[in-house]
Amino acid sequence: MNAARTETTFSDSAVKGVRLYQMRTIIDSTRGNLTVGEFGGELPFVPRRFFLTYQIPERTTRGEHAHLKCEQFLVCVRGSCAVSVDDGLHRDEFILDRPMVGVYVPPMVWAAEHQHSWDSTLMVFASDPYDPADYISDYAEFTRLVRRADAPTTPA
Amino acid sequence: MNAARTETTFSDSAVKGVRLYQMRTIIDSTRGNLTVGEFGGELPFVPRRFFLTYQIPERTTRGEHAHLKCEQFLVCVRGSCAVSVDDGLHRDEFILDRPMVGVYVPPMVWAAEHQHSWDSTLMVFASDPYDPADYISDYAEFTRLVRRADAPTTPA
Repeated sequence: MNAARTETTFSDSAVKGVRLYQMRTIIDSTRGNLTVGEFGGELPFVPRRFFLTYQIPERTTRGEHAHLKCEQFLVCVRGSCAVSVDDGLHRDEFILDRPMVGVYVPPMVWAAEHQHSWDSTLMVFASDPYDPADYISDYAEFTRLVRRADAPTTPA
Repeated sequence: MNAARTETTFSDSAVKGVRLYQMRTIIDSTRGNLTVGEFGGELPFVPRRFFLTYQIPERTTRGEHAHLKCEQFLVCVRGSCAVSVDDGLHRDEFILDRPMVGVYVPPMVWAAEHQHSWDSTLMVFASDPYDPADYISDYAEFTRLVRRADAPTTPA
C-alpha cells in the first residue's frame, strides 16, 4: 500500500466568509499525487474564469482590491506566496505553499498577494467573467462601503 | 512600456476535435505575468471539476483512457510533460511546458500524459463531476466504440 487519501475540509477565518481549504488529495509514491476539487459541491462556486500569475518580481504586491459580487478561490500551484484578507473589521493572512491548499475569498473582502517566492505561480478561479465595474480598488472607498452595509437602518 | 499582451488563439490537431490553445497573456516585467481564460467563451466549456497531478515518478504514464461525455482542458503549470491524443484514426502529441498553453480534449479521444519533468504539475479542468461510468479504460474497447460510431448505418 503506497497511497494515502485525505478528504476536503475547511476552516473559517476571522475575516467574514473567508475559508481555508485542504482539498481532497491522494498521495501515491508509485503513481504520483492527485489533488481534486468539484466546483459547486465541495468547492463553493462554479468558475467562469481562471487566471495564473507568475514570474512576479520580488517585493511586488498584487491584488489590493475587493469585488462587489465576484467570488474567488486561490491556489498556489508552484512555490509560495502570502494572501492577506480584510473585511474592514478583521484581518488574516495565509501562507500558500502547496497545491492542496486553497483560500476562498467572498465578495466585499479586500485581498492582496505578496511575499511571492521566485518560482511562485498562483492560480485563481473567479465566479464571474471579467468586469471592471465589479472592482473596488480604493481602500477608503472599500471601508466606506463596509460601514454603510453594516450601519443600522434608521426609519425614514 | 514594460508590458506585452497576446490574445487567445488556438490551432486544430489532426486528432478529431483536439485543439492546442495559446491563452491570453500579459507579460509585464514590473508587475509579473498573467495568463487568463474565460470558460464557456474563449475556452470551450465551464468546468465542474479540476485536478492537479504532481510529484509524478519518472517514466510514469497517467491518463490512458477516453471519456464518453466529459471534456477536458490540460495546462502544465509547472515543469513540463507530454500529452498524446488518439481518436482511433490519427495520433498527435504535444509538449506542455508553459502556463499559457492548454490542450482541449473532447469526448471519445484517448489521452495519456507522460515524460513528466521531476517538477511537473499538470492542471486539468473537466466539464463534469467525477463519474467512473464515463471512463473507457480499455484501448480495444475504445477502438471498437470508435469503429461502431463511424460505421455507415445500414437499412434494418
